[in-house]
Amino acid sequence: MEPLDYRSAGVDLGEADRVLDGIRPLVRSATRSEVLSDIGHFGGLFQLDLSRHARPVLVASTDGVGTKLRVAREAGRHEAPGYDLVSHCINDILVQGAEPLFFLDYFAMGRLEAEVATRVVAGIAEACREFGVALLGGETAEMPGFYPGGDYDVAGTIVGVVDRDRIVDGSEVRAGDVAVALPSSGLHTNGFSLARAIVFERLGLGVHDPFPGSVGTVADALLARHRCYLPAVAPLLEAGAVRGLSHITGGGLEGNLPRILPPGLAVRVDLDGWMLPPVFDALRRGGGVSDAEMLRVFNCGVGMVILTSAPDADRVLASDPDAWTLGEVVSRPEGAPAVRFTGAPGWNRGR
Amino acid sequence: MEPLDYRSAGVDLGEADRVLDGIRPLVRSATRSEVLSDIGHFGGLFQLDLSRHARPVLVASTDGVGTKLRVAREAGRHEAPGYDLVSHCINDILVQGAEPLFFLDYFAMGRLEAEVATRVVAGIAEACREFGVALLGGETAEMPGFYPGGDYDVAGTIVGVVDRDRIVDGSEVRAGDVAVALPSSGLHTNGFSLARAIVFERLGLGVHDPFPGSVGTVADALLARHRCYLPAVAPLLEAGAVRGLSHITGGGLEGNLPRILPPGLAVRVDLDGWMLPPVFDALRRGGGVSDAEMLRVFNCGVGMVILTSAPDADRVLASDPDAWTLGEVVSRPEGAPAVRFTGAPGWNRGR
Repeated sequence: MEPLDYRSAGVDLGEADRVLDGIRPLVRSATRSEVLSDIGHFGGLFQLDLSRHARPVLVASTDGVGTKLRVAREAGRHEAPGYDLVSHCINDILVQGAEPLFFLDYFAMGRLEAEVATRVVAGIAEACREFGVALLGGETAEMPGFYPGGDYDVAGTIVGVVDRDRIVDGSEVRAGDVAVALPSSGLHTNGFSLARAIVFERLGLGVHDPFPGSVGTVADALLARHRCYLPAVAPLLEAGAVRGLSHITGGGLEGNLPRILPPGLAVRVDLDGWMLPPVFDALRRGGGVSDAEMLRVFNCGVGMVILTSAPDADRVLASDPDAWTLGEVVSRPEGAPAVRFTGAPGWNRGR
Repeated sequence: MEPLDYRSAGVDLGEADRVLDGIRPLVRSATRSEVLSDIGHFGGLFQLDLSRHARPVLVASTDGVGTKLRVAREAGRHEAPGYDLVSHCINDILVQGAEPLFFLDYFAMGRLEAEVATRVVAGIAEACREFGVALLGGETAEMPGFYPGGDYDVAGTIVGVVDRDRIVDGSEVRAGDVAVALPSSGLHTNGFSLARAIVFERLGLGVHDPFPGSVGTVADALLARHRCYLPAVAPLLEAGAVRGLSHITGGGLEGNLPRILPPGLAVRVDLDGWMLPPVFDALRRGGGVSDAEMLRVFNCGVGMVILTSAPDADRVLASDPDAWTLGEVVSRPEGAPAVRFTGAPGWNRGR
């Protein structure tokens, strides 16, 4: 009998070394002055700058990119999911007032391909550099028998810091406060299982086909980068102009706004205040998706909601040229939902 | 045409809610006084106790459990990978002297099964409770079209803290220091692709069959929990008796010992100092695996190596009744390997 070894069992440690060689300069490019370690240690080391935080509270979040991955893989755009993942994670701790510090990634593939792994990490490193986050560590796993074909999964964890006195948790939200919407850049990373069913199954399109009603391809429309709201929101946090922040991810407005509302309050969302961006409108028409389902599954153009006092509303609206007033915080009668939609959706007008 | 919705696209938000209901009490059971948030927030909040650390350095690590997952799934022991993952991650930051603070998990499945997801998280929560780690957050992803059958993947991230003056990085290791081995509890979470090829393909066994040379089943032998070395090592760190620590994971002794050796030093490993534990011996015989490959792929019974000064060696050996002297730190001539194996492997004697 032939002696068995790791390679014959499907694990190519040479390919793992090639991944390490490929990502080493990427990891080194995404660093900060507080990082003490270099790649190759068991754990990454990050010294907190206590001069900036009297009562530091760490804020951490883990996420994946869902089945947007499949679209990225089919289009051969392997940098896209990494960038999206970092943006998503930054937004998820930004809503509690945190400055992002460092990120760690998990990448798993059935049969490791160094080029693919390196490009995924390149997207992660690019976003880390852009938003001042250290890429402190990560894990690249080869999982023979999992992930058929060239499929892979990628997830990540972010850790940030906020001073205890500056945590944003919605507790200061009051009736009469204004809800300001910052536009999304597309689907972000939510609703892809439905979007894929509409585009690839019902409409029968491929990633390189023109996207309905658009000048770009299906890949262009579906893989638009998940916007990171740190640049827009950090100055507002610094200025104390923010009472509540909600990152609109899975579950849409009605799934995410309630997380930051004190008891007895609701947000009135004026549906006639904005037009559905073309990518969502194409999905709505292509799938015959109801308005209620659209609002539950997709961000529908609203990527981040900022709750602010009426006097600060103008300043918040000025943080983004395309921001608009989404609605208002109102009192919530016993048993009523925390999000109250009013008006006819703007996307139904004049069609 | 039937209107499409999220459910028809393969995403069952009701099942996601059942997961959340199942894991909520588990997450709440694995907490610490520093945790400020409850499940449902975007990120988890953890206030650092600055009274215990003058110059706090955060140490973070991400890992998965590899294809041990497949064995756990086939045996229906879904708690096992979660426990292993936490142990593994704790060990990976313990080797730099860090106390673990909090953990976040990522769980992904093609078609979400609430019972499976809940049991995986139950294993995570059990280990977190046992070792005083807060389960601060996590992500449960349903990925239709990924992960065929009932397969799933799970990964996790740990964050711990060490005072800057107490970081263990091997820089104080000197020639003449003693290498002490703490026994592993089995394969831990490495080498499973080879172990599976031997046990399931070459030997043709199933998870419920008796394991060769053992009273238990294949599942018992392969799924033995990954030992967490925090209880044994933390008092030694406190006493200042540790100069270097190496968690023996993928790559074995020769892959992991070099990470903590200063330039010009090597570890002499005396192979005649211990007997190969039965589970490894059965794999060696079953696969006809060479000694060199055994040492490269598996921990071979050595789960953690502690480098210590000769005067402290007795104290370190006393930390575990089954610890033994693995070898010694020696000078390393130019071009020589950082791990020098000497003697005939103990497992070859008298057979």
